[in-house]
Order: sequence, then C-alpha cells, then structure tokens
Amino acid sequence: MGQTPYLRVDVAAMEANIAAMARQAASASLALRPHAKTHKSPQIAARQLAAGAVGLTVATIGEAEVFAEVCNDLFIAYPLWVDAEDGNRLRRLADRGVKLQVGCDSFAAGSNLVGLPVEVLVEVDSGHHRTGVRPDQAGALAAELVGIGLSVAGVFTFPGHSYSPTSAGQAAADEAAALAMAADSFRPTRLTCNRLSGGSTPSAGFTTGGVLTELRPGVYVFGDAQQIELGTIGFDQVALTVISRVVSHAGGRVVCDAGSKALGADRAGWATGYGRVLDAPDARIVALSEHHATIEWPGRLPHLGSTIAIIPNHACNTVNLADEYTLSTGGTWPVAARGRNH
Amino acid sequence: MGQTPYLRVDVAAMEANIAAMARQAASASLALRPHAKTHKSPQIAARQLAAGAVGLTVATIGEAEVFAEVCNDLFIAYPLWVDAEDGNRLRRLADRGVKLQVGCDSFAAGSNLVGLPVEVLVEVDSGHHRTGVRPDQAGALAAELVGIGLSVAGVFTFPGHSYSPTSAGQAAADEAAALAMAADSFRPTRLTCNRLSGGSTPSAGFTTGGVLTELRPGVYVFGDAQQIELGTIGFDQVALTVISRVVSHAGGRVVCDAGSKALGADRAGWATGYGRVLDAPDARIVALSEHHATIEWPGRLPHLGSTIAIIPNHACNTVNLADEYTLSTGGTWPVAARGRNH
Repeated sequence: MGQTPYLRVDVAAMEANIAAMARQAASASLALRPHAKTHKSPQIAARQLAAGAVGLTVATIGEAEVFAEVCNDLFIAYPLWVDAEDGNRLRRLADRGVKLQVGCDSFAAGSNLVGLPVEVLVEVDSGHHRTGVRPDQAGALAAELVGIGLSVAGVFTFPGHSYSPTSAGQAAADEAAALAMAADSFRPTRLTCNRLSGGSTPSAGFTTGGVLTELRPGVYVFGDAQQIELGTIGFDQVALTVISRVVSHAGGRVVCDAGSKALGADRAGWATGYGRVLDAPDARIVALSEHHATIEWPGRLPHLGSTIAIIPNHACNTVNLADEYTLSTGGTWPVAARGRNH
Repeated sequence: MGQTPYLRVDVAAMEANIAAMARQAASASLALRPHAKTHKSPQIAARQLAAGAVGLTVATIGEAEVFAEVCNDLFIAYPLWVDAEDGNRLRRLADRGVKLQVGCDSFAAGSNLVGLPVEVLVEVDSGHHRTGVRPDQAGALAAELVGIGLSVAGVFTFPGHSYSPTSAGQAAADEAAALAMAADSFRPTRLTCNRLSGGSTPSAGFTTGGVLTELRPGVYVFGDAQQIELGTIGFDQVALTVISRVVSHAGGRVVCDAGSKALGADRAGWATGYGRVLDAPDARIVALSEHHATIEWPGRLPHLGSTIAIIPNHACNTVNLADEYTLSTGGTWPVAARGRNH
C-alpha cells in the first residue's frame, strides 16, 4: 500500500492510447510528434517513438535536455527568448547530435537565434489567441528571419480553442485554414514551407490529411477528466489517476487526501468539478484545498481509510507535481522533467 | 539574470509581514502557530519562531519531518489516517524530541492513533464545510477518543469560508462561535478544553481575544493576489513574486513565460484573473497555459525580453512548484518540503 496521494499509470491503457494515436496519424498521413510536456518521462517517450513518432515536441530547453536521452529530433514549440546561457545549452544539445527546431513569432526573438544550431518554425495564431502571428503574415516574418541568416522550416500552431465543449471540430478546421493561409503567405517570398504542424488532443480526431503535415498532441497518452468532459475519451481510456485515501466523512461527503498539491488546481469554466472519480462517474469533486478533495458521492460512501482513484482535470499539471509514477505493472518511473520550466 | 520563471522573495517585505502578524496575535493575546505549508522553508519558519511563534502548523507527516529541523512543537492540522509506516514515522519524530499534535474528526481515524506519541485536537466545522465535526459534537468525540486512551488537547477549525470577498469578518465570527460551542460541548464529559485553535490569513485581522487561544495563518508571510483582491493586503505587502520574461506581443497583449507550471492554476470564481502584475495594477492575466500567461496590458507594453514580476493567486501552490527561492538579499533558500504530500 503506497503512501497516498500518488500517481498511478495504467500501463496497458497508456500503451493502447499510444497505439491508437499512432494509427490515427498514420491513417491521415500525418507525422506524429507527441508533446512530451504531458508525461515528462523518457520511458514513455521511448514507447511513443517505438510506435512510430518521428520525434518529440517539448516546451523548454530544460525538457529538451531530458528528452535528448531518448530522441535526436526535438521541436521546442515555444517562442523562445534566448540569452547567452540558453545559446550555450542549445549548442551542447546539438553537439550531442540532436536536431533542434524552435518556435518564433517575432523578429526580435528570432534575432537572438542567429548563429545557433537551430531551425525555426514560425508560430501562427489559429484562433487560440495566445502566441503566434496572423496567418497571412507568416511568410513575411519567415523572410525577415531568413534575411538575418536563419533557416525556416515551416509553420506551426496550437489550436487551443479546441478546449471547449463542441468546439474541437471547428478548432481543427480553423487550424487547417490558418496553416494553409500561412503556407500561402510564403509564396511571394519564394521560400518553401514544407512543414505545417498542428494538433491538440481534442482536435486530433478531427484532423484529416491534405493540409497539415504533422500532429503534436500531448494529453492523449494518459487522458484526463477534461478529455472525458470534452467527449474526447471514455473512462476506460484513462491511464493516469491519483490514488488517494478517504480521510473524512464530514457532512455526509467523502473527503480524500488528494488536493491541489497533488491534482493541480485546474478547473475550466465548463468542468463539472476538480476532477472525476474513476469508479464513480456520478461523484463530483465540489471543492479542492491543498490536501483535501471534497466529493459529493451518491449512494454508499467508500470506507474511511479506503483508497479511491481520482482522474485529474489536466494531466500535464498533475504530473508536474509528482516525482514519480507508480506503474500498474509494478515498479516506478521518475517524472524526469518535472519543474523544467526553462 | 536568472533563468525565468523563478520565485523571488522580497526579504524585507516578508520580515515586515512576519513582524506584523506577531504583533497582531500578541495584541489579541493569541498564541501564533503559523502554517508552514505556505513557505515549506525551514529558514522562513526559523524567522517566524524568532518573532514569537509558539510552534508550527503543518499539513502532513512529511512536512513535520522537514520542520522538525527547526521546531520541536508541531501540530499536524489534518485528520490523519495513520497506518503502520506512518506510526513509525511519528514515533521517530517523537524520539527526536518533537511534541506532536494531530487533528481528528472521527473515531475510526482516532483508533489508529492509539499508542502513538501524539496528542489529539478535535476538528470542528465552522462553516467551510470541508472536514470537522459539528461544533456541538466535539465533546462527544473527545470523550470517545479519551475512552480508548488518547489524550485530547482541545479543538481546532479552519474558517476557509473567509476566502470570499467581504466574508472574512463573518467567517471570524463563525469561527469564534463554533469553537466556543465546541468547548462548551466538553462540559458534560468533564474533560477540559484549553486549546481553541483557528485562523486563516483573511480572517486573522478580525479575530479578537476572548474565545480563541491560537491562530494558524499561513499565507500572510508572503501575501498573494487572492489576499490583494480580498482586501487583506496592499501591493506593497507582497513578498513573493514569480519573475517572468515577456516572450510575445501577439495580438497586442503581453505573453510571458510564467504559466500554470510556475504560478499554479488557482483561480477562484471572484478573482479578476490568474494572478496580478506587481508594477502594473491595471494589467489582467486573462489566460494561463502551462508556460504562457496572456496579459491584457493597458498602455505601453513592456519590451520583448524584459522581465516582469507576477504575484501568484495562491502562494502555497506556487511555492510547491519550485525547488528554490531567489532572495532579494542575494542567494537562495530551498523549498525543502516541496511535494511532501504525505
């Protein structure tokens, strides 16, 4: 009996998720480059690569340093602002034989990349309204970057507005339209744009071939309560839970010891609570403190001292709170890239 | 220039906060037992103790093990469900000379404590509706626990419903009423109830002497955006920020590199955003991804590549994401109890 709360991976469910996404990408003739920020685990990345992934996506140089252990083709899908120390870190990665690509959405950030062993992908805003240039301006930025000596491999976007009920199909359509427009905007520059990279777990199932060349989903490897409530997956596809102990029945509710310091505090406006309970789909986590989840539980309450499996809302943030995974097959894996925020 | 995002402590502001709460508790004749889950730092705890704290509050046995370094009077303010391994950990703490108290809100959980070197405080629900027995039932549970050989020192509550605008005064009144009723409920049992422990940062300023004997605030040591928006503190009292780099001006907004993996994803329903910006009170963090904060920024935007100081919504969860503090006075302190969830 482990010391609760702890992260549990259902290895069979995870391997099924890895295989299913690999099949889906292959059937749409898309290269699959999973985002490793979700799992932060070289062991899991190795399984994604063995299933046919062409490389990995990461968010930071620190994640790239961890995943260089198992992969020599890494895309840092982030508009990096690189200083001298960062430049040295990127050079050391290249010296290890890693092919590096980085995101860019401004000439100023691109200027810092001159002379470094990286290729650039121009980031495009496809409707999430976070980072990225307007699709029709991608070619102009690419030309400016090439003008200062950079190599531009193509364009990428994150259709994050897929994270809302019933919007995944539209987000996938927006993503394809934005990337197509971005590629078109390269024509007057006479540059080629061979890489059109997108993808999120909710929208991946709506992405057909023809425009995109590459998918970068992350969460699919585990699934989480957000994906259940978005309709992307069912409870039977969940591969990551937080095993938690029931510590109180105060007020006729279940209170267990997985709070925001184990689950993360993510709660989208459309979520029904702070996570879901694996074996009690009708239970609702109505409140979350740092070490308490308060659960309205229809019917007979699980005993004080018993354990329950909680599906976190957002797997990526949950994983970043833990030092290791406990495997359904026995043993543990480290969360090797936990806290690698730079 | 540090590698962003990183946690910065303004040591002078922190020391002023420590001194102010010590004065406030003393003026109300209350013992101060700060909750160390906020800072997870023995160095900071040592300063609280030097300023007159009678001991520390912690949430887990793991935190108790860390803070036993600097304090020999620890209250684990949580309804622990203790197994054999936990019992051995508690024994080892007692062997180090630590006086231990633990929370309890059920006979079943109390039964696990028999024979262990701990005193018990009965937890009471004063309106937060998380854990704790009804105030009028505290004495009955205390009598049952004493009946199986436990030592009961008193009662405690957490008035967590103070975390809502304009409710802190009422929460403090509810807390005092609940603890008074709980102490009264000891009378028929002929047990004494000398310890009446409460406190939260928002309600602490409303707590007068007369009923409570002890305060257990945590967040006050740093302050955070929630405390600003609740009206507990001003911007000038904030001692903890996340230093973050501006990486994009996409869409005319500021996007910086402190996302939910650095700030935490906490956002109460009444919060104006995912944190505040220290030097730009009118800016609003309208969206948060794992490595991006999207900020609507009135007026001239800070330059790409410049750093800004973000005040997290909830200091406790922010701290739990970091391995160290960078001090305004130079040097670092470890977040020694990070991840100590059990």
